[in-house]
Amino acid sequence: MYRGLVEELARKNDSRILLAVIDGLGDISIEELGGRTPLEAARTPEMDRLAAGGALGVHISVARGITPGSGPAHLGLFGYDPVKYQVGRGVLAALGVGFNLKHGDLAVRINFCTLDDEGVITDRRAGRITTEKCVELVGMLADIKIDGVETFVIPVKQHRACVVFRGNDLSDDILDTDPGLVGHRPVPVDGSEKSHRVVREFQRKAEEILKDLHPANFLLMRGFALHKEFPSFEERFALDAASVALYPMYRGVAGLVGMNVFKCDPEDLSGEVKAVKKALRNGHDFVFLHHKPADSAGEDGNVSAKIRAIEEFDRALPSFLEPGFDVVCITGDHSTPCPMKLHSWHSVPVLIHGGPQRWGYSSAFSERQAIKGALGSFMSTDIMPLLLASAGKLAKFGA
Amino acid sequence: MYRGLVEELARKNDSRILLAVIDGLGDISIEELGGRTPLEAARTPEMDRLAAGGALGVHISVARGITPGSGPAHLGLFGYDPVKYQVGRGVLAALGVGFNLKHGDLAVRINFCTLDDEGVITDRRAGRITTEKCVELVGMLADIKIDGVETFVIPVKQHRACVVFRGNDLSDDILDTDPGLVGHRPVPVDGSEKSHRVVREFQRKAEEILKDLHPANFLLMRGFALHKEFPSFEERFALDAASVALYPMYRGVAGLVGMNVFKCDPEDLSGEVKAVKKALRNGHDFVFLHHKPADSAGEDGNVSAKIRAIEEFDRALPSFLEPGFDVVCITGDHSTPCPMKLHSWHSVPVLIHGGPQRWGYSSAFSERQAIKGALGSFMSTDIMPLLLASAGKLAKFGA
Repeated sequence: MYRGLVEELARKNDSRILLAVIDGLGDISIEELGGRTPLEAARTPEMDRLAAGGALGVHISVARGITPGSGPAHLGLFGYDPVKYQVGRGVLAALGVGFNLKHGDLAVRINFCTLDDEGVITDRRAGRITTEKCVELVGMLADIKIDGVETFVIPVKQHRACVVFRGNDLSDDILDTDPGLVGHRPVPVDGSEKSHRVVREFQRKAEEILKDLHPANFLLMRGFALHKEFPSFEERFALDAASVALYPMYRGVAGLVGMNVFKCDPEDLSGEVKAVKKALRNGHDFVFLHHKPADSAGEDGNVSAKIRAIEEFDRALPSFLEPGFDVVCITGDHSTPCPMKLHSWHSVPVLIHGGPQRWGYSSAFSERQAIKGALGSFMSTDIMPLLLASAGKLAKFGA
Repeated sequence: MYRGLVEELARKNDSRILLAVIDGLGDISIEELGGRTPLEAARTPEMDRLAAGGALGVHISVARGITPGSGPAHLGLFGYDPVKYQVGRGVLAALGVGFNLKHGDLAVRINFCTLDDEGVITDRRAGRITTEKCVELVGMLADIKIDGVETFVIPVKQHRACVVFRGNDLSDDILDTDPGLVGHRPVPVDGSEKSHRVVREFQRKAEEILKDLHPANFLLMRGFALHKEFPSFEERFALDAASVALYPMYRGVAGLVGMNVFKCDPEDLSGEVKAVKKALRNGHDFVFLHHKPADSAGEDGNVSAKIRAIEEFDRALPSFLEPGFDVVCITGDHSTPCPMKLHSWHSVPVLIHGGPQRWGYSSAFSERQAIKGALGSFMSTDIMPLLLASAGKLAKFGA
């Protein structure tokens, strides 16, 4: 995709677009399903109907053979080149717990750990302390004051937390203090820049607070990442976008591109349906809807759970569509094949319904039909231009 | 493919990959075969079995519509952008005869030619002298000594030879001395750089030696090319690669990317089978296997010979696979359609078997099924990432 081309051609109209992401949707041939995938085995009359009246294709997330994490995979779907717009681990961790990062913030992941009397790491996870313990320790660290920055320490889960430093002139050119192995000392923070001084001081003050507490008597830092604000969805695509997702991580990535994040009450599909309706009532013309359980089932290698997760989404689909979208796209962020129990590089089925399409090529939404669909195969970053075009939101290029 | 992405993610494991290249594999619809291609007409039960249990696709070598030479086509298969990594004619000629080029060598092709008394070219190929004569003439030129460089003159075939200059500060910014037409004088070597001086001196001394010999009383030079070492397969893909090929040209290109070149004894398929086994015994985790006769048959326009060449490879396949590969890829470097008697730009069928795949889409290895295969169509440089991913040798990108 040529830089700036879509931005130049994007224009507003009244059409409304739904981008529904079934996380980890794609899969591979599974023996116990006679070579079918969970999507092929699932009963999905609603998606099949849209497939028959719409157009299918497959997307490649980052590049052929490359397995994306959730961050890059979603950025690709949102039309942001995931290699150009890399989001560091520290930033993802902070976004993942819903922390409102600002441009220039330095974020980093923390693991509470155990050091012996010699200062050597004996447990990189401090015996996987409970989340309650983590919250307690973070509370103790919250009082740390460092000259020239605001410091925010945020609990995550078990031994995991993160810290955000907010101030001018911070850089993320800092090596992990976590050596990745027990039996070593933490890697010292060298360097004379402001960030180095800030991180050293934070570490020293944290050590003072933690040193007599066992097993979590120190902390390791990894994934220093400076938060850079992205050009927003509104700037790039002239869309007033809303996100409806149950998991903080996906709300975080949506927030990163300037989507208006809607909370769901209750935190389930019915809450998501309500949030989608509210987003349209509030005048949003683009809704990103995220459905997580298919990915979780894939990561667990649970074929029947993945089928159920897909069927559950299919049953909810009419409610999601009820308020009226002009263009609907259903896809995944990446494949999470059950036999692999991991994200993978395999292409991801895409369904686009609404707007002028070549329809009648497909009878169901499946990997097998998608690869032969009317849309062909394309990069994930091509999806946004295809949706804008289908919704009549892209002007002609050239005379 | 993004520069450096695969390199950053590549990691070692115990999986073993075979990349088998049937040279010139792809073809076009042939009237006498009822519109089928040689691959479609050939009896290939072994490849068909792998196709049914694996995934098919097609690759584009350099770009749509571009017909690659053997050098660029193989570099693409090896994951090196063939436009970025251009290998000059002189270098290919030297590699083709197995000359061990070093970084910074200046290589150039030689044609022995005939000049008249006025110094005008009357025959650019000196009446296509025999290879024996060529060897004799090269022997006479071998004594040429030039200040500041080592000089190697190497016979090729008939009127063709090449010369390599080895020394510091050489450049390949030199015009061909071969004007490409009879009735003209050789193009003089202008310029004041070291390379210009070296080439002029070589030409003058060669003229001294050849001037009274008819018909080869002079030589023309074309394709000045500086040899640049490439980042190796090991550096880029963390693979310890071996090449098994009967023709020096392909050994040369494999050597260029740092593959360990195995000789075959005898010089036929049975020798190649032995070499593949030896490569695995020696601990290599990647084998490039080259099968030439399909291309030669295509260049001859010999449909039945091309079918036989493909069937011959198929019969040998179980022996090649016997030592045990985790991921097997069978493809061509380019198409060599019999009706064209030339390399062509048509996409090339690719078969990948092993590792997590979408299988069951295909019943045979053919152009027709490959274009509708589970892998879709992609650039030749995408093959290496796909193979690494299939073998579990690529880490995830981003969190």
